[in-house]
Amino acid sequence: MNVEVINTGTELLLGNVVNAHLGFFAQALFPLGLRIARQVTVPDGEIISDALSEALPRAQLILITGGLGPTTDDITRDLVAELLGRPLRHDAAVMESIAGLFAARGLTVTDRVNRQAQVPEGATVLPNRNGTAPGLYLVCPPGGLAGATGAHVFLLPGPPRELQPMFTESVLPIIRRIAPKAPDRGCRIHHVLGMGESNVEAAVGKRLLAIQGLELGYCARPGEVDIRCIGNDHALAAANRIIEEVLGDRVVSHNGRSLEEIVVGALAGAGQWLATAESCTGGAIAGRITDVSGSSAVFTSGYITYANQAKTQALGVDPALIETHGAVSAEVAAAMAEGALQRSGADWALSATGVAGPTGGSEGKPVGTVFIGLAQKGGITRVEKHRFARDRKTFKQLTAQTALDILRRALDARV
Amino acid sequence: MNVEVINTGTELLLGNVVNAHLGFFAQALFPLGLRIARQVTVPDGEIISDALSEALPRAQLILITGGLGPTTDDITRDLVAELLGRPLRHDAAVMESIAGLFAARGLTVTDRVNRQAQVPEGATVLPNRNGTAPGLYLVCPPGGLAGATGAHVFLLPGPPRELQPMFTESVLPIIRRIAPKAPDRGCRIHHVLGMGESNVEAAVGKRLLAIQGLELGYCARPGEVDIRCIGNDHALAAANRIIEEVLGDRVVSHNGRSLEEIVVGALAGAGQWLATAESCTGGAIAGRITDVSGSSAVFTSGYITYANQAKTQALGVDPALIETHGAVSAEVAAAMAEGALQRSGADWALSATGVAGPTGGSEGKPVGTVFIGLAQKGGITRVEKHRFARDRKTFKQLTAQTALDILRRALDARV
Repeated sequence: MNVEVINTGTELLLGNVVNAHLGFFAQALFPLGLRIARQVTVPDGEIISDALSEALPRAQLILITGGLGPTTDDITRDLVAELLGRPLRHDAAVMESIAGLFAARGLTVTDRVNRQAQVPEGATVLPNRNGTAPGLYLVCPPGGLAGATGAHVFLLPGPPRELQPMFTESVLPIIRRIAPKAPDRGCRIHHVLGMGESNVEAAVGKRLLAIQGLELGYCARPGEVDIRCIGNDHALAAANRIIEEVLGDRVVSHNGRSLEEIVVGALAGAGQWLATAESCTGGAIAGRITDVSGSSAVFTSGYITYANQAKTQALGVDPALIETHGAVSAEVAAAMAEGALQRSGADWALSATGVAGPTGGSEGKPVGTVFIGLAQKGGITRVEKHRFARDRKTFKQLTAQTALDILRRALDARV
Repeated sequence: MNVEVINTGTELLLGNVVNAHLGFFAQALFPLGLRIARQVTVPDGEIISDALSEALPRAQLILITGGLGPTTDDITRDLVAELLGRPLRHDAAVMESIAGLFAARGLTVTDRVNRQAQVPEGATVLPNRNGTAPGLYLVCPPGGLAGATGAHVFLLPGPPRELQPMFTESVLPIIRRIAPKAPDRGCRIHHVLGMGESNVEAAVGKRLLAIQGLELGYCARPGEVDIRCIGNDHALAAANRIIEEVLGDRVVSHNGRSLEEIVVGALAGAGQWLATAESCTGGAIAGRITDVSGSSAVFTSGYITYANQAKTQALGVDPALIETHGAVSAEVAAAMAEGALQRSGADWALSATGVAGPTGGSEGKPVGTVFIGLAQKGGITRVEKHRFARDRKTFKQLTAQTALDILRRALDARV
């Protein structure tokens, strides 16, 4: 089954938005044994019809994204309906669901919105949980159009937060039904922290490649690497053993669970509370913790103490300590964590103080220097020094990640 | 001049790597009046020739990325040379430069590396400062290949850190020479908050469409819409007037600047300090503020008070107030903002308390309910009630955005 992706949207070709769809589709389709043979991006306009005409003789599964919204540049629905000879019909049920969503958000339904209730003849409507434009699914019989080999065509909304749940909930079940039976293969994402991609591969790559029938992929983001394993149960178990043995507690999870989910789960399991005291990260540690549903049962309070005075006032850090060692120091990181622990009554407190940059560095403490503290009720306070000489957002992300990982290891060790 | 981009690389179609080239090219070419008409991604393989054959009759500038390296799957150079009928010749100067780079890194030159010194007949070599594979530039005369209208073809290395300097230093000067004199057009992004895409278009769309020579696009994210205007100075100014007149202070910026940049700039300009007191947003407001470089000059401290006890302990919120009205209430939002103002000594304090969900809702305060407070030194405290019935992350994002926007309007009004 040949798969092609057509991304529509002038903003993609102007460089205002990065194409996140391609990677999402690829990773969702791979476990079904499907690979994307070609991807094309075209601007909003008649050229969308050209792209589809070109794909029809080649592909049996065509995913089209974007251009389903209410504005005048949203013309994908109309062009595809015309090309495939499927007149648009007003769908009352779709309109009702859009009107309901507008009412819930206290918005007025304009004429333009009505366009989103237009459905090409014979199309299946795919509900949109997070927006007004529904997705559409059309089956094109072989020979129906010049050269068409028979294709399943999906029209999906452009915003990833609308497209992704729709794809998972409505599109994948259809594809599973129509795709040729894939060999019995599972997919496992091993989430590795604190190592670069080439080091991860150097450590486990050769042994993993020797496993028969295992398909292997690596995906790196700042400070983390996913090892993607695809294969039958036997191959996946063999890979698991090697990864566990070689990478040990560098592996946060073997099933794609995020670091913060692991940490919140461990705290909840132990019935313990966490507080945070952040300077340079500006709330990024607390932000990741509170992204997890149920975090209110483990997270008590966070202090974001940017100014020195705030460190003293909110956390009781001795001004003399800041004077002597500087705000970016192991001593202040420890005092921040201990202050947060004491004032919040939590069982654990994480702290971070550093130089996010691009300004503020000095010879002894260049941009990217950060001290991360972890205080434990009735226990010791530990401080780690790191250097993440990266842009501001990446620095914050790496610091928050490292802090959460320090806590994860401490929670692990305690068990 | 029609521009097309061909990205080669199986890793792009497997979703292991995001395509960063398209946006980079788009933003570099726009000031020259050049737009990318189409982009295609193909895997490493013969299909690269198909993609180039298809582009040649349509495009006069073709940018091909990837597949120039030393490994067996790097075959772009060979395929393009064959398709264009330009036999590969060993280039001694290129080989010398590669050997020099290897020597500098203490590496041995293998046979595979020699392939990178192969240059198609008549091609111009583009030096690579950050890697071994040089770029290549070929001019295809009109009619030389079936349907070719005469094209400038560039072959560029896949890694962005090799491609980007090469493009800026070697490719752009050539394009500037060959591109027709660009019409004088600029691009403006108007950033609108708190309105849906269809409402924005209903408000300004018709009048903007009536401006001669103005190209218009909309791009929506949760709670925000970008209006993209492209045209000459005259058209851009006309659009600016209409957008300002109709949307007023819904428009955060006319130049793509983010809400948090605007707020930090306004606070810095006034020499004023901000504190935050966050419950349901878990630090998201502080996080956006501290994403802005220079925020340490305006942001004093943030309190993330998730538990009721934390609201009392860190911010001095009266427990009786929480008992009477509930933690999610206008009264507590006001008390949180006032507590943060007082304890931090800041000039402004933002607060947020709400039900992020998916659990924790009640009849009177369903999931998504949030109270946002703003306290001002020596001024009044205002509280707004909103409902963002969305997933947890979107709820946090919309609340943080609305809070920052309330502060922006207050700072605006004060001027």
